[in-house]
Amino acid sequence: MPAKKVCIVGSGNWGMAIAKVIGENVVANGKFQHSVPMYVYEELIDGKKLTEIINTDHENVKYLPGHRIPDNIVADPDLLHVVENADVIVFVTPHQFVYSICKTLKGKVKKSAICVSLIKGLDMHEGNLDLISNIVRRDLEIPCAVLMGANIAGEVASGLFCEATIGCDDAVLGNLLKDLFHRPYFRVAVVQDEDTVELCGALKNIVGVGAGIVDGLGCGGNTKAAVIRLGLLEIVQFCNTFFKKARTETFLESCGFADLVTTCYCGRNRKVAEAFVLSAGQKTIEELEEELLNGQKLQGPPTAAEVYKFLKGKNMLHDFPLFTCIHEICIGKMKPGDFIECLKNHS
Amino acid sequence: MPAKKVCIVGSGNWGMAIAKVIGENVVANGKFQHSVPMYVYEELIDGKKLTEIINTDHENVKYLPGHRIPDNIVADPDLLHVVENADVIVFVTPHQFVYSICKTLKGKVKKSAICVSLIKGLDMHEGNLDLISNIVRRDLEIPCAVLMGANIAGEVASGLFCEATIGCDDAVLGNLLKDLFHRPYFRVAVVQDEDTVELCGALKNIVGVGAGIVDGLGCGGNTKAAVIRLGLLEIVQFCNTFFKKARTETFLESCGFADLVTTCYCGRNRKVAEAFVLSAGQKTIEELEEELLNGQKLQGPPTAAEVYKFLKGKNMLHDFPLFTCIHEICIGKMKPGDFIECLKNHS
Repeated sequence: MPAKKVCIVGSGNWGMAIAKVIGENVVANGKFQHSVPMYVYEELIDGKKLTEIINTDHENVKYLPGHRIPDNIVADPDLLHVVENADVIVFVTPHQFVYSICKTLKGKVKKSAICVSLIKGLDMHEGNLDLISNIVRRDLEIPCAVLMGANIAGEVASGLFCEATIGCDDAVLGNLLKDLFHRPYFRVAVVQDEDTVELCGALKNIVGVGAGIVDGLGCGGNTKAAVIRLGLLEIVQFCNTFFKKARTETFLESCGFADLVTTCYCGRNRKVAEAFVLSAGQKTIEELEEELLNGQKLQGPPTAAEVYKFLKGKNMLHDFPLFTCIHEICIGKMKPGDFIECLKNHS
Repeated sequence: MPAKKVCIVGSGNWGMAIAKVIGENVVANGKFQHSVPMYVYEELIDGKKLTEIINTDHENVKYLPGHRIPDNIVADPDLLHVVENADVIVFVTPHQFVYSICKTLKGKVKKSAICVSLIKGLDMHEGNLDLISNIVRRDLEIPCAVLMGANIAGEVASGLFCEATIGCDDAVLGNLLKDLFHRPYFRVAVVQDEDTVELCGALKNIVGVGAGIVDGLGCGGNTKAAVIRLGLLEIVQFCNTFFKKARTETFLESCGFADLVTTCYCGRNRKVAEAFVLSAGQKTIEELEEELLNGQKLQGPPTAAEVYKFLKGKNMLHDFPLFTCIHEICIGKMKPGDFIECLKNHS
């Protein structure tokens, strides 16, 4: 079999970290071409193009400073050039950009290509809530697997051990993707339950906001454990109510409760939500996102908003009280302190 | 029905916190006598008896300083006097003292009494590993339920919201115990799976040591998530292999993964294990327990030792690599840094 061409679309914090994993793996494994083009949205950093900085210094000084990525990762601002003839397309952009990227790529990708999405989010499509991977499947007409897990980018880039989960309903493709991602320090399991894996990755960010709220309220580890637990129960219920029935074991994979825990203790949604509560109404979530995240995007509040809109349309807000309260706190409709009442009364 | 007499055996950190919950509940709920005797192992604190301090100042200045407990909790150094005519006996001592306490109480408790154990640990009995509650059942010949959960004592005493799980196979007794423990800030669920609830409470402390080891190694949130996840999988496997089959839902209760998370982020086993790794062989676990815990006992290392001995006897150490490595690190047979290899190779 000829070596497969891999490309990466996206170059943020997580994109750069996974580029390190992929860059090492394509060299270690005979199945892939060694050169991996990466689509980088061009920005000027101190007057210099980000693509040039990455290709010269092998570091993304804006989104993952301090980490060298392999030389075979080649930054390119031309999206169509990046995906040209690619056999495996790795999507790792903020979910806000997926529509425009897919529009650009429509009809331009190899018919036999496969996609793997590392994007955490959900999409409102024709009044219904949909998976990001379904945008890719619809627009590009190719299969789309997902990779999720307890994977804080900086730690992955530092080579600290972690686990991840590939959701891929096609076992053969799943194994190919495992070869692309699995490293000794990045342990990958493949499960044939791709919808659930993706939903876990999206919905955990809502719970991460909840964890930040109780941290901002000064509640301690017991209360946070309750938020994490009730959050997981709502994630399970959401998957089983609105998508094809989840395999219970999937929630025990890294993409499930493990990622949820890390998100609730170490994630950016937690951090901004805590600051939001501590600001006591002086700052909005958006202002704090701008202030604290250095251009990174927050996925929890927009995902909470989409889930809220979707549940409201179905008259089912009361079935997901945690998700509901978290959104209402984010938009200022409910006071952060009332979150504890929500926990106390959770059914 | 005449009001039931409740007593508490134990007055450490957790004993004092739960005494606050119980002391409030017996007054709020008509089913119980208001006065609750509490067995306190007598110690002199600055020349004054601990029982006298508790009964005068309503504070255990040694084990839960800064928290006032209700006046209806009456400290008493006479164990037999405390349990005399008691209908509900709450056991909340370190597990090292259960044998001698049960020996003293044998034949002295009311035949219709019930016990509820809050003790986290396991017992080696006639070459087999057994539950602490079974010592109580055997010696006192009365039913023994358990209460476990994500319940750091100081936070419970501060009235910060948390959840807990009662394991009680008899639904009627379970409901009575729920009345005794459930408060607006201490939300109790009852499950008829008492063995699993108790095993979760014991085994999570081994995993808490593992979390401390990776913290000591400076590994970050991703690696810790892997420890927590693999630890939960070994807990589930242990329950199902050696005890009656667990209900999967029990692991989703507070006693299950929620308590595990709190233990791995906020618990004393984590703290001492982290210090042990950072001491780089200069101090033993026992020395650090003495140094850091102000008289509190550590349950993780002894539980790991008992589980290890038990598994070794069955030639099954390799089926529980995480539990095995954690014990071997505790006793200095394995280097802390090798723990990462254990995670990487976990089946």
